[in-house]
Amino acid sequence: MPQGYASSSSFPSDRLSVLLADLRAGRPLVQCLTNSVVTNFTANALLALGAAPAMTDIVGEAGPFAQIADGVLINLGTPTPEQRAAMIEAATACKATGTPWILDPVAVGALPIRTALAAELLELGPTVVRGNASEVIALCGGAGGRGTDSTVQPEDALDAARTLVIRHGVGAVAISGETDLIVGPDGVWTVPHGHPYLTLVTGGGCALGAVIAAFAAVAQDAQEAAVAGSVAWEVAAELAAAEAAGPGSFAVGLLDRLHGLSPQLLRDRSAVTSLEVAQA
Amino acid sequence: MPQGYASSSSFPSDRLSVLLADLRAGRPLVQCLTNSVVTNFTANALLALGAAPAMTDIVGEAGPFAQIADGVLINLGTPTPEQRAAMIEAATACKATGTPWILDPVAVGALPIRTALAAELLELGPTVVRGNASEVIALCGGAGGRGTDSTVQPEDALDAARTLVIRHGVGAVAISGETDLIVGPDGVWTVPHGHPYLTLVTGGGCALGAVIAAFAAVAQDAQEAAVAGSVAWEVAAELAAAEAAGPGSFAVGLLDRLHGLSPQLLRDRSAVTSLEVAQA
Amino acid sequence: MPQGYASSSSFPSDRLSVLLADLRAGRPLVQCLTNSVVTNFTANALLALGAAPAMTDIVGEAGPFAQIADGVLINLGTPTPEQRAAMIEAATACKATGTPWILDPVAVGALPIRTALAAELLELGPTVVRGNASEVIALCGGAGGRGTDSTVQPEDALDAARTLVIRHGVGAVAISGETDLIVGPDGVWTVPHGHPYLTLVTGGGCALGAVIAAFAAVAQDAQEAAVAGSVAWEVAAELAAAEAAGPGSFAVGLLDRLHGLSPQLLRDRSAVTSLEVAQA
Repeated sequence: MPQGYASSSSFPSDRLSVLLADLRAGRPLVQCLTNSVVTNFTANALLALGAAPAMTDIVGEAGPFAQIADGVLINLGTPTPEQRAAMIEAATACKATGTPWILDPVAVGALPIRTALAAELLELGPTVVRGNASEVIALCGGAGGRGTDSTVQPEDALDAARTLVIRHGVGAVAISGETDLIVGPDGVWTVPHGHPYLTLVTGGGCALGAVIAAFAAVAQDAQEAAVAGSVAWEVAAELAAAEAAGPGSFAVGLLDRLHGLSPQLLRDRSAVTSLEVAQA
Repeated sequence: MPQGYASSSSFPSDRLSVLLADLRAGRPLVQCLTNSVVTNFTANALLALGAAPAMTDIVGEAGPFAQIADGVLINLGTPTPEQRAAMIEAATACKATGTPWILDPVAVGALPIRTALAAELLELGPTVVRGNASEVIALCGGAGGRGTDSTVQPEDALDAARTLVIRHGVGAVAISGETDLIVGPDGVWTVPHGHPYLTLVTGGGCALGAVIAAFAAVAQDAQEAAVAGSVAWEVAAELAAAEAAGPGSFAVGLLDRLHGLSPQLLRDRSAVTSLEVAQA
Repeated sequence: MPQGYASSSSFPSDRLSVLLADLRAGRPLVQCLTNSVVTNFTANALLALGAAPAMTDIVGEAGPFAQIADGVLINLGTPTPEQRAAMIEAATACKATGTPWILDPVAVGALPIRTALAAELLELGPTVVRGNASEVIALCGGAGGRGTDSTVQPEDALDAARTLVIRHGVGAVAISGETDLIVGPDGVWTVPHGHPYLTLVTGGGCALGAVIAAFAAVAQDAQEAAVAGSVAWEVAAELAAAEAAGPGSFAVGLLDRLHGLSPQLLRDRSAVTSLEVAQA
């Protein structure tokens, strides 16, 4: 937990088990416009979870598909000109139809083209923003980090996340770190799950964006989707890490464990609590 | 087996073992113009099988390479403008040189750009069409499904497959499902192999298209290539599923088992029979 | 060892352990402009090794990123027009800032567009060229092979490699094969490590280029980086192969073993020796 804060009430963990059961019953169609490095792992993560992935990201199809998708991920990792245009097309369609969509502003701040694109996408009203602390700060106009490494801690991005929620109307901001912070209009949830191996597998964070998009199709609101997605992904990671011989077998086991994750286990292991400023 | 049908004669399983041995001896060069999600898994599947993959899919190289390739796969999963032009270039070269090529019309019908592209490619004479029932129906002009999910059964696509063979000159149509149907000018073979895990790994169907392209380099005709490719891929899947803890370890084991698949085992496990209309 | 040659002095294996320890302490940022087939495996290999990958390969970002990267890989496997322009941009930035960069001329010679691109990139002064014998010969203007298969042996490319070093100012040329040859201004090192499974996993060679780029960030010179990268990658492969059931589990184990590779083990297993013309 970040220094200077104290946790108080627990997240209603029964909701986590209901949401996972609902997701599997509904098999939401999740469209991903994501970077070329993680398309395979992201699609496999969605399949293992129980969702139906579709990586439709070309101009002329991205918009029509977003209209029938149940959730959309837009990840800025390797944004070619074609994909940038398709992302605007998809986000515009989401805005028109109310399809929930997740923005993952990979490495914004450090790099000019994606930084401009992220600002444009932010105006189209993402349901959830997911990134590390540097990326969240940079999306708000602050100074970014180098690549996907975050040089600051999640709590350093709390003000930026609150600004995204209050001024830009983002439904929730999921700040990834050793303990994730999920910031929404009603407060902040801390997700103390996961494992360092997640940072040694490319797409460990990018796939979480897709998982949150899948939960957004069944959740009541953006913050609930971000909490449920983060807990499901990271509890599966904990189970996989306990059996892994290194990052290679961890990534394989993560898909196995995500597929085998039971709603009951998700409920029982959840350690999500609200974040409050500690009393002096 | 589809209701209303009865099986009769068995596919000559000795041919399967001969074809796999021939493939490994010849190490056919298989060019893949495929979607960005499955390039890695597809190339690894070809290597594990004993073929030599080359994912050459840019304008100016796709055509020249198709002239030296032994088999070509064209998969419409994520068709960027550059790749669309390269696909036309490769299929045109295949038509000129007689190189066998496989068309996988991913998600046609539901999406406009690939549907138009598929129609254009169909005119260039694919050796084999491989898809699920919805895709095969849509390629014939019928109503398609959503994404790569098929909402209809393989036998529902039999008429469409026969139309592709008779009117469009396609050598064989491989309709994927719990039991695959391989439709050619001389009838229909049923392939009752595989495992549900294949639907939980992205590329489980796409890689089969590449495997069929590899067998097309050594087979006597298109239908034989489609049968052999389907049986090899799906028997390896059965072996891998028996040892898997989930879809992650299944995908890894599938490559191991494909590499270790012996011609004898392929022959012994084959349960391919011809499909006949059941007598009342 | 190639016929007609004899080995003499050993490579100072203490340097290998120092370099691996330095790499892990420094966590170099390695930018990869590589082919779409191997982006995921390459990024995971760099993470497992202890480096920080970034696959920034679009116009307008590739150059600025190369200025802050510690090492850059340019691999010509699937060079779209967008990526070709980004490669020139990145290599130009490397030349200006002195960032070490690796050129992997995949399948040059056989294919026109990448062959022209490789010639243009060669003028921008790569620190290391890594390829199989056919590719090294073709980069020098000789006749290339088909795809990524090499139809000639590493020692057949020695003259071409020496030409690249002497006439084109390349720091070192790493010729991959059963025994790799690392050619530099001071002579030739033989690296008798690795395993045939590396040829059955796509990216087995491409990822080595990225590993060399990571070592180039901490090495004293290009040849040392190429030796250290080759030994680290191939010793990890030997360890993984000893436990693998096939190419699928080998690739997974390779990442595990790369992550667990200790500087001491690298030093102890190194069998690198200099290559001398055998006395008659």
